[in-house]
Amino acid sequence: MMRATISELAALVGGEVVGDPDFTVSGLASLSDATETDLSFLADGRYETAREASGAGALLLDRERAADRPSIRVDDPYFAFLTLLDRFHPRSHPDWGIHPRAVVSGEATLGEEVHVGPCAVIEAGARLGDRVVVYPGTYIGAGCEIGDDSLLFSNVSVYGGTRIGSGATVHSGSVLGSDGFGYHLGPDGAFHKIPQVGGVVVEDNVEIGANTCVDRAMMGDTVIRTGTKLDNLVQIAHNCSVGPHTVMAGQAGLSGSVTIGSHVQVGGQVGVADHLQVEAGAALMAQSGIGRNVGPGEKMLGSPAAPRGQAFRAHAYGLRLPELFREMKALRRQVEELSGRSD
Amino acid sequence: MMRATISELAALVGGEVVGDPDFTVSGLASLSDATETDLSFLADGRYETAREASGAGALLLDRERAADRPSIRVDDPYFAFLTLLDRFHPRSHPDWGIHPRAVVSGEATLGEEVHVGPCAVIEAGARLGDRVVVYPGTYIGAGCEIGDDSLLFSNVSVYGGTRIGSGATVHSGSVLGSDGFGYHLGPDGAFHKIPQVGGVVVEDNVEIGANTCVDRAMMGDTVIRTGTKLDNLVQIAHNCSVGPHTVMAGQAGLSGSVTIGSHVQVGGQVGVADHLQVEAGAALMAQSGIGRNVGPGEKMLGSPAAPRGQAFRAHAYGLRLPELFREMKALRRQVEELSGRSD
Amino acid sequence: MMRATISELAALVGGEVVGDPDFTVSGLASLSDATETDLSFLADGRYETAREASGAGALLLDRERAADRPSIRVDDPYFAFLTLLDRFHPRSHPDWGIHPRAVVSGEATLGEEVHVGPCAVIEAGARLGDRVVVYPGTYIGAGCEIGDDSLLFSNVSVYGGTRIGSGATVHSGSVLGSDGFGYHLGPDGAFHKIPQVGGVVVEDNVEIGANTCVDRAMMGDTVIRTGTKLDNLVQIAHNCSVGPHTVMAGQAGLSGSVTIGSHVQVGGQVGVADHLQVEAGAALMAQSGIGRNVGPGEKMLGSPAAPRGQAFRAHAYGLRLPELFREMKALRRQVEELSGRSD
Repeated sequence: MMRATISELAALVGGEVVGDPDFTVSGLASLSDATETDLSFLADGRYETAREASGAGALLLDRERAADRPSIRVDDPYFAFLTLLDRFHPRSHPDWGIHPRAVVSGEATLGEEVHVGPCAVIEAGARLGDRVVVYPGTYIGAGCEIGDDSLLFSNVSVYGGTRIGSGATVHSGSVLGSDGFGYHLGPDGAFHKIPQVGGVVVEDNVEIGANTCVDRAMMGDTVIRTGTKLDNLVQIAHNCSVGPHTVMAGQAGLSGSVTIGSHVQVGGQVGVADHLQVEAGAALMAQSGIGRNVGPGEKMLGSPAAPRGQAFRAHAYGLRLPELFREMKALRRQVEELSGRSD
Repeated sequence: MMRATISELAALVGGEVVGDPDFTVSGLASLSDATETDLSFLADGRYETAREASGAGALLLDRERAADRPSIRVDDPYFAFLTLLDRFHPRSHPDWGIHPRAVVSGEATLGEEVHVGPCAVIEAGARLGDRVVVYPGTYIGAGCEIGDDSLLFSNVSVYGGTRIGSGATVHSGSVLGSDGFGYHLGPDGAFHKIPQVGGVVVEDNVEIGANTCVDRAMMGDTVIRTGTKLDNLVQIAHNCSVGPHTVMAGQAGLSGSVTIGSHVQVGGQVGVADHLQVEAGAALMAQSGIGRNVGPGEKMLGSPAAPRGQAFRAHAYGLRLPELFREMKALRRQVEELSGRSD
Repeated sequence: MMRATISELAALVGGEVVGDPDFTVSGLASLSDATETDLSFLADGRYETAREASGAGALLLDRERAADRPSIRVDDPYFAFLTLLDRFHPRSHPDWGIHPRAVVSGEATLGEEVHVGPCAVIEAGARLGDRVVVYPGTYIGAGCEIGDDSLLFSNVSVYGGTRIGSGATVHSGSVLGSDGFGYHLGPDGAFHKIPQVGGVVVEDNVEIGANTCVDRAMMGDTVIRTGTKLDNLVQIAHNCSVGPHTVMAGQAGLSGSVTIGSHVQVGGQVGVADHLQVEAGAALMAQSGIGRNVGPGEKMLGSPAAPRGQAFRAHAYGLRLPELFREMKALRRQVEELSGRSD
C-alpha cells in the first residue's frame, strides 16, 4: 500500500494543491466507494451530488471547480486519476527469473531481465527481447520473435514463426498462429486441407485479450497493427490485417482476408464476411454482420448491416408492422366500398 | 461398474419396489438405449410408446403408473434417475496428492486432502481450502483464495488476487481475472491503457464452463454470485455482477458494468450493452442484443431486443413485407383510378 | 528452403513442362507476391492481368492456356499449387520423443514414433496410436484413446474417456469432454447439476480449431463425424452429432442434442437451438439463428432464420419501411378526401 501527501501527488500530475498540502491518502477510489483515506476525482459537473455524498478525503478537480476538501486541481481529472492508479497499483509479476521448471531450449535467445515462469516452454530459435515476461504454461514455438517489454500471461499458445513486437500484452489462453480455416472439397467428397504456410505478425503496443485467436496466413502474414487492442474471445482469420490503433470488442470475428483500417471501432459479437475492407474511423455497432465494404467513418448496424440511421429506422418501423398491416386492411376495405359506390 | 438390486436403489431414492426386489441392474440409460441389465425412467406419459419398445430391465416410474416390469415407484422419476446417475458415475479424479511435478510455492497455504496435478502452478500467498482439486496445467496466481471442495480442471488461468468460493467448478481453459478492456484515446491518436486494478469474486457453487472469460474490475470487483452457472465461451467484462442462481448459455457476452439479477436466463450468443441492468427472473432469448434495462420477469428477443411477443410479431410480419408492398402498389393504382373517375 | 526444377515439380503433379525444364524455383507465391525465383499459378482467366504484372519466374497453368514463361501445364492449377505447397512447407514438429519433462503415466500405452512435448500430461489408461504428436501443456485424461497420426497442439484439454480417431488435428486451447450444461432447478431455488456421464467421440480426419469446445454427452456420446472441420471458438454442446464432412466456421454454436448431417456449411456466429436436425447439404448463412429443423440442401438466413431468399427479401423491403409508412399516410389522406367527395 502506497501512502502519499497530496502535494506529492500534485507534482506527479502537474496539479495545484488546494487546502492542506500534507494531507495524506493511501488509496484511490470512485466517489461512491472512497473513504477518508482515499483520493477520488470529479470529472464532470453531473457528479456534484455524488461528490457531496462522497466520503473521499481528497479530490482531483478541474481547474475551475470549487474545492470542498483538500484537492488537486488539474486540466483533466480523469486522466490524472488514471496516472495515479498506475502509480498506486503498478503491475507486478512473480520474480521467476528463468524458473528452473521452465523449459527453455538452449538454442533460444533471451534478452536482459527476462522472466520465464515454471512450465512455460520456449523452443529452439525463439528470440525474446529485454524485459519480456512469460507466465507459466505458455508455449512459444520454434523461431518466434518477441520484442522488448512484451508480456505473455499464462497458458498462451504461440505457434512457431510468430513475430510479436515491443510492448505487446497477450492475455491468458490466447492462441497466435493456429492454422487458417481453408479446405478444398475433393472429388471424393472429403475436405482436403489447404496448407497454411504463412505467419502472424503482432506489432508494437498491441494488447490481445483472453482466449482470443489469431490464425496464421495461408501465404504471407496475418497482421495486427501497432496499438490495436483486441478484447476476449475475438476471432481473427487467416490473412486479415487489423489497425493500427483499432479496437475490437469481445466475441467479434473476422473472416479470412478482411482488412480493417486505423481507428475503427468494432463492437462486441460483430462479424465481418471474407475479403471485405473497413476503412479508417468506421464504427461497426455490436452484433452487426458486415456484408459489404465500409467507407471511412461510416457507422454500420444490423445483420446484414446497413448505415446506422437507416438500420435504426428500419428496426423501429419494423416493430410497428402489425399496426401497418391493420391499417392496410382497413384502407383496402374503405377503397372497396368507395369503389362500389362509384360504380 | 456398479451393480445393485432395485430394492437397494429404491432405498437410495425413497422409492417403492414393484416386482422382484432382487432384480439386479448394472447400468442406467434412456428408454431407447437401455438393455435388460439397465434401469431407465419414465417421466411423462408421452413416452409410453418408448417404454413399450424399450429393452430396459427395470424402470423408475411415478407413483400412479402401471408397472410392466420390475420397477421403482417415486415422486419424481427424472430427479430419482439423476440421483442414481451420480451414484453409478461418481466424479473421480486422478489421485495426485501434491504431484511432485506440480509447482506449489512454499508461501501458498493448502487445506486437507488437496490434490494438485503435474504442471499446475500455485503462486505465493494463494490459499486453497480442503479437498480442492487442481488439474494439470492450471495456473493460480499470487494471493488467490479458493474455498473448500472447489474443482479446477486443466489449463485454467486464475490471475493473482482472484477469490473463488466453496463448491465451485471451473472447466478447462477458462480465464478468471484478465484485464478489463479499457483504454483512453490520447491526443497522440494512440489508446492508453486504463489500469484494471480491481478483482474477481466467484461465489459458492458457481460453475464456469470451458474457455469462458471473466475480466477483473477496473476498481472494485467483478462478481459471479452464488449458484450461477456459466456455459462455455462466455464473456463477462469488467465490473459486471451476475446472479445469484442465474444461467448464461454458450457464447453469451456482457459488456462492462452490466448487472444481471437472480434467476435470469441468458440464451446462447446473447449480448448485453454496457452499464445495463437485467432484473430478477428475466429471460433473454438466444442471439438477442440487449440495448436497454430489462425489468423483472421480462422476456426479450431480437437485436436490438424488444419484448418477446412484439419482436416475434415484427419478425413474422417482416417476412410478409413483399406481399404488403405489392398490395400497396395495387391499392394505390385503384385509388388513382377512383380519383380519376370522381374528378 | 527447398529448391527444385520445374521438371521435377511437374512430375509431382502429373504436369507437362513448357520452356526450360531445368528452370529452378525456390519458393511458391501468389501472382502479386511472386519474384523470379518463385512458382505461382493462374487458376482462372480473370487473373490474366495479374499474370502479366507478376514477377513470377514460372507458372502453373491449365492445359489450354498460352505460356509466357517457363510453365507447368496441369488439369487443375490451384490444386497442383496446394500439392506443391505441402511439399515446400511440410509440417514439422520439434523432435521431442517422449520429452523428459513430459509427464506420462506408466499405465498409458503409446504407439511407435510418438512425440510428447514438455509439460504435456498423459494419464493412466490413455492409449495413443503410432506417430501421434502431443504438444507442450496438453492434457490427456485417464482412459482417452487417440488414433494413429493424430496431432494435438499446445494447451489442449482432453477430459478422461474421450476417443479421438486417426489423422485428427486439434489446435491449441481446445477443450474436448467438458461437462454439458445441464441443471435442474430445485425447490430450494438453486440449480442442481445433472450428471454428465457420457463421452465425446471425434472420428478420423476431423480438424478442430483453436479454443473450440466440445462437451461430453449427458449419457451416450457427443460425436464429431469423419472429416468434419470445426473452426476456432466453436461451441458444441452435449449430445450433438456433427457431420461427416461438414464445416463449421468461427464462433458458431450448437445447443444440446442438435444433429447436423453431412456436407452442411455452418457460417460464422451461427447458433442452432436445441434438439434440431439440419440435414445433408444444408447451408446456414453467417449469424443465422436456427429455430426449426432444416431440410436437405436448404439455405437459411436471419435470426430467427428463414429460407435465404425470403429472409433476404424481407430484409431489403425492411430497409424501405420508412417509405412505405409515408406512402400509407399519403394514400390514407387521398382516400379520406375521395370518401368526402363521394358522400
